Amino acid sequence: MITIAEYLLTRLDQLGVKHMFGVPGELNLPFCDKIEDLKKIAWIGGCNELNSAYAADGYARVKRSLGVCLTIFGVGELSALNGIAGAVSEEVPMLHIVGVPSTAQQKEKTLVDHTLGDARFDPFMAASQQITSIWTILTKKDAASKIDRLLIECISKSRPAYLALPTDLAGVNISSESLQYPLSRHVSQNDPAAEQFVVNRITSLFAKALSQTGSSDVVVLVDLGAIRYDVVQEVKDLLQVTGFPVYATPCGKSIISETYDRYGGIYWGSELSSHEVKQKVEEANLVLLIGPFPGDFNTGNYNYDIPTECMIELYPDHTKIQDAVFPGVGMKQLLPKLGAQLQRFHGTASQIPVPKFDNVVPQDGSSVITHDWLWPRVGQFFKPNDVILAETGTAQFAIVDVRLPSGSDLLSQMRWASIGWAVGAALGACLAIKEGAPRRTVVFVGDGSLQMTVQELSSLIRTGVKPIIFVLNNGGYTTERLLHAEGAQRKYPDLANWDYAGLLKVLGDFDGTASRSYKARTRKELSDLLDNQEFGEAKFITLVEIFMDKMDSPRSLKNWPKPGNQPERPL
Amino acid sequence: MITIAEYLLTRLDQLGVKHMFGVPGELNLPFCDKIEDLKKIAWIGGCNELNSAYAADGYARVKRSLGVCLTIFGVGELSALNGIAGAVSEEVPMLHIVGVPSTAQQKEKTLVDHTLGDARFDPFMAASQQITSIWTILTKKDAASKIDRLLIECISKSRPAYLALPTDLAGVNISSESLQYPLSRHVSQNDPAAEQFVVNRITSLFAKALSQTGSSDVVVLVDLGAIRYDVVQEVKDLLQVTGFPVYATPCGKSIISETYDRYGGIYWGSELSSHEVKQKVEEANLVLLIGPFPGDFNTGNYNYDIPTECMIELYPDHTKIQDAVFPGVGMKQLLPKLGAQLQRFHGTASQIPVPKFDNVVPQDGSSVITHDWLWPRVGQFFKPNDVILAETGTAQFAIVDVRLPSGSDLLSQMRWASIGWAVGAALGACLAIKEGAPRRTVVFVGDGSLQMTVQELSSLIRTGVKPIIFVLNNGGYTTERLLHAEGAQRKYPDLANWDYAGLLKVLGDFDGTASRSYKARTRKELSDLLDNQEFGEAKFITLVEIFMDKMDSPRSLKNWPKPGNQPERPL
Repeated sequence: MITIAEYLLTRLDQLGVKHMFGVPGELNLPFCDKIEDLKKIAWIGGCNELNSAYAADGYARVKRSLGVCLTIFGVGELSALNGIAGAVSEEVPMLHIVGVPSTAQQKEKTLVDHTLGDARFDPFMAASQQITSIWTILTKKDAASKIDRLLIECISKSRPAYLALPTDLAGVNISSESLQYPLSRHVSQNDPAAEQFVVNRITSLFAKALSQTGSSDVVVLVDLGAIRYDVVQEVKDLLQVTGFPVYATPCGKSIISETYDRYGGIYWGSELSSHEVKQKVEEANLVLLIGPFPGDFNTGNYNYDIPTECMIELYPDHTKIQDAVFPGVGMKQLLPKLGAQLQRFHGTASQIPVPKFDNVVPQDGSSVITHDWLWPRVGQFFKPNDVILAETGTAQFAIVDVRLPSGSDLLSQMRWASIGWAVGAALGACLAIKEGAPRRTVVFVGDGSLQMTVQELSSLIRTGVKPIIFVLNNGGYTTERLLHAEGAQRKYPDLANWDYAGLLKVLGDFDGTASRSYKARTRKELSDLLDNQEFGEAKFITLVEIFMDKMDSPRSLKNWPKPGNQPERPL
Repeated sequence: MITIAEYLLTRLDQLGVKHMFGVPGELNLPFCDKIEDLKKIAWIGGCNELNSAYAADGYARVKRSLGVCLTIFGVGELSALNGIAGAVSEEVPMLHIVGVPSTAQQKEKTLVDHTLGDARFDPFMAASQQITSIWTILTKKDAASKIDRLLIECISKSRPAYLALPTDLAGVNISSESLQYPLSRHVSQNDPAAEQFVVNRITSLFAKALSQTGSSDVVVLVDLGAIRYDVVQEVKDLLQVTGFPVYATPCGKSIISETYDRYGGIYWGSELSSHEVKQKVEEANLVLLIGPFPGDFNTGNYNYDIPTECMIELYPDHTKIQDAVFPGVGMKQLLPKLGAQLQRFHGTASQIPVPKFDNVVPQDGSSVITHDWLWPRVGQFFKPNDVILAETGTAQFAIVDVRLPSGSDLLSQMRWASIGWAVGAALGACLAIKEGAPRRTVVFVGDGSLQMTVQELSSLIRTGVKPIIFVLNNGGYTTERLLHAEGAQRKYPDLANWDYAGLLKVLGDFDGTASRSYKARTRKELSDLLDNQEFGEAKFITLVEIFMDKMDSPRSLKNWPKPGNQPERPL
C-alpha cells in the first residue's frame, strides 16, 4: 500500500521528473508535505502561478518530456491558465495538479473561500476543460488507473493534462502494485499494408523527382512536430542515410544542427525567407515536411509557396502525399522504413547544393546597438549546446535569422506568443539543464515582457542557476508600434522605465556576490562584454540591459507580410 | 453617427468611469486608438493583465461603481481571469473588454496567433463564461443595445461582465441616438402588498423585542451587500431615525463609521467576536442583518450563533424573517419604509448600550514588532477618510480588530482571498481617489503577496499617486505555517528574501525624489516613523518594510475556529 500522493509522485519520478513548480496553498499543502517527505522531486515554489506554469513549460521543452505545475482551486489554477493554454497551443506535455476542496466539502457544497459565493465547485475546472480535453478528478476508487491513463494521454498527445486532487485524498492509501509497470508514450501502430503503400509511393516520388532533367532538388523541411512527437532521432537517421538537404521552419529551428553541412537555413514562407532558401525550397521537385506546426509566425503569415504536387507531409498519426491523406500511417514508425528505402538515393541527393547560413556582422561604423548589428553579433557569442530562449516580440523575430551553434536548443513561444513567458520558462529550463551536463542558458527578453513576470528573477537567484539574460530596453511595446498602423504615434505602447540592471540585487542578491549586471549603450560596450572570457563562462546569474531605439526592429518585423493563404487544417 | 468604440466609451463616461486599466495588444489597438483620441477616459497600461484586473477591481470598490479592464483574446483574457473571478466572488461591478479577432477572421476560422492551434475561437470566451454569466459578443447589428443591456446587467447585479469586441468593429459607425438616455442600475420594484406585509411584520417583531422584560436588545448588523447593492445611505438613515445599536461583519467593516457613538464593533461569529460583542449580538432579541455576504472568513468559519427566530435578513431582491422568505421584497425600497415605521422606537432603542471599540496598544516593554502591538499602533496612525487596503493573509485577519477612523474605507478580498490583489487594487484605488477630494491610501501587504504582483509598484510611481505601503516581511506564507498542521516545520512556506525597501528606486524612481522607503525592525523605529508628520502627510509614494517573526500572527489567525454550521444558501 502507498498513499495516493506517493503513487502520483512515484509515477512522475518514473517519467523523469526531478523538479516541479507551483505555489503552495491551503488545499494542496497535504500534497506538498508528501513532496517534501518523499525527497524524489525538488519543489520549486514560484512567486506566482502563471510564472510557475511557464517554468513547467520551459522545463518540459528542455527535457523533451513532462513538466509539472501545482496550484490550488480557483485563485491558483485560474492564475496559471494562460500558461497552461500556452502549453496546449505549443503542444508541450505538462501536468497541472490542482489541490481542490475535499470530497466531503464538495459533496456538502460547503461555501469555502476561493468560491464565487454560489457553492459551485465546478466553474474553475470547467474553465480549464475549455482549454484542454485531458483531465480527471481524482477519487479514491480507481485513483491509480486514473493517474496512469491521464499521464499516458498527456505524454502521448504532448499536451497539458488537468488533475483535480481533493485535499483529503493525498494521504489515502491505495495499492502500489501497478507501479511495477512503467508508463510510456503511446505510439500509434501503423497498418502494415497502408504503411507499405505509403513507403512505396514516397519512394517512387523521390525516384522521379531526383531523375528530372534541369533542377532535381528534393528537400527535407523539419518543423516542431519532430520534437513534440519524438522523432528527432528518426529524422537525423533519415538525413544521415539519404544525404538529403535539410531546412527548418522557425519553430523547427535548432532541431537539426545549424552547423550540419547539409543544412541550408530557415524556410519562412515566400516573403521572409532568404533569396537562396526561398529558391531552393519553393523550386524543389519534392519537399518532405516533417511534423508541420501551422501558425502565422511559423509560416511567415501563411505565405508558403510550395505546390501541393511537390509536398509530402508527415504527422504523428497520418501522412499526406500531395492531395491524398493516409490516416493511421504515423511518422514514428514510418520514418525508419522510409530511410531504408530512400538511402538508395544518397549518391544523387547528397550532391544537391545547400546555401551557406552564417552570421555576418555589419561593419557600418555606427556605435548604436541596432537589431541589424546585435543579432549576428550575439550569434558569434553563442557556444555549442547553449539553450537559448527568445521572448515573443523583437527577439523572437530576430533570432530566426541567427545561425545557432551545434547542440544548441532554441525555445520560443511562436504560436501562443504570450509575452512574459521567457523569464518563467528560463527558470524551468535552467533547472532541467541542472539535471544533466552543464549548458549555458541565454535569454533575450524585451522590457515589456520582462515587466510581466519580473519577480521570477528572484527564483533564478534563489535556486542558484546562472542564466545570462539580455534585456532589450527600447522603451515599450515595439511590435505594437510597428504592426499597428497608428502604433508609432501612440502613447499606449510606452512603458515605465526601470533600472533593469538594478533588479538582481534588490530581488535577492543583496551583496552582489551571486550576480552580475551590466548596461550596454554602445556596440563597443556590448562587444567588449561579449568578448570577456569571464562573462562568457556564465559563472553568475547575469543581466545585461541593452539600450535600443524604440522604433528599431529586425528586418522580419519591418517587412512582416500581409497574410497569405492558410494551409488546410491538419486532420 | 458615432463609432462603436466611441459609443462604448461614451457610455462608460456617462457611468462615471474616468480611468481604465489593461494591457494593449494587437487585437485591441484600434480600440486603444479611440481611447487616446476621445480623451474622456485616461488609459492606465498595466505591467500585466492580472494586475490590471485587480486595479479595475480596486477602482470600482473605491468609487462604488463600475471599473473597466481591457485585454486581448487568449493570452490577455486568460491572464486576467483570476482577477475577474475575484470580482465575481466579491460582487464588484467590472467590465472586461476583450479585443478578439475580426468578424472575418472568426468566420474563416483563420489560425491566428494566440489560438490553441485548432482554429477554435471560442475556448477562451467559454472559459470566462464559466466564471460570469453576463457576457456578449459585439456585432455591428444591435451593437448599441448589446452594450447597453450588458452594462445595465453589470451594474445592477454588481458583477463582472465580459464584452468580446472584434478588432474590426471599433471603428464601425452606428447611431448615437440612444446615448441621450443614460443608463442606470435596475432596482427591483417591490410588490406594494408584500412590502407592506413585511414592514408590518418587522415592526411588530421590533415592538415585541423592545418590550420584553430583562434584555430588550435589538441590533442592526451591516454586511457587504449594503455597499454592493447601494443601500448605504438608506442604512444610515434608518440608524439615524431609530437610534438602533449597530455592528458590522468583517466584510461590512467601515460601511458605518467606527467612531459612530451607536456602533459597537465587529461581529465575527461566536468564536472570534469580542466577549462584549458576542454577548450583545447573540443575546439580542432581534438582529436586523443587512446585505448578508456569506463566506468562511466573514462568518468566523460559519460560527454564527444567532437563533433563527431572532433573525431578519435583508437582501437586494428578497427578505427573510425568521424562517419565512418573502421573494420580491428588496431592501433598496424597503429600508426607507422600515425607517418610517421603526423610528417610533427611537426612545427605547437609543438607550441600548453599545460596547466601546478602541485601539489599545500593549505596553509590555518589548522592542519586537508583533502583530499584537502593530495593529492597534497603526490604528492610531490612521486619519479620517483614509482608504485602507488589507491583503489576504495576516493583514486581513488583523485589520478586523483595528478601530478605523470616520470616513475611512476598508478594502479587502475576504471571500475570494487571492494573494497579490492588494498592490494591483491599490493602483485602481489611488486613481479613483485622485478623481475626488484628497485621501490617503494605506496598504498592508505580506511579503508573499507582494511578490505575486510587485511590478505594479512601477505603475503607482508612474501615475504619480502616493500610497503608503507597509510590507510585512515575515519570511514566507505565515498563514500556511499556522493553518496547516504540519506547516510550521515545513520548508515550502519559505520565500526568497528581497530588499523590499529597495524596490521603488529600481522600479522607476531612479533618483529617489518621488518616493520614500524605510525599514522598521523595532517598535521604536516604526513608532517614530508613524509619529513623523511628514511621513503622515503622504507626499511621496512610500514603502515601509516591517520585519516580523515568521510564526507571529494576529489572535484571530492563532485562534481560527473549526468550521461551524453553514447558514442556508441565499436564494
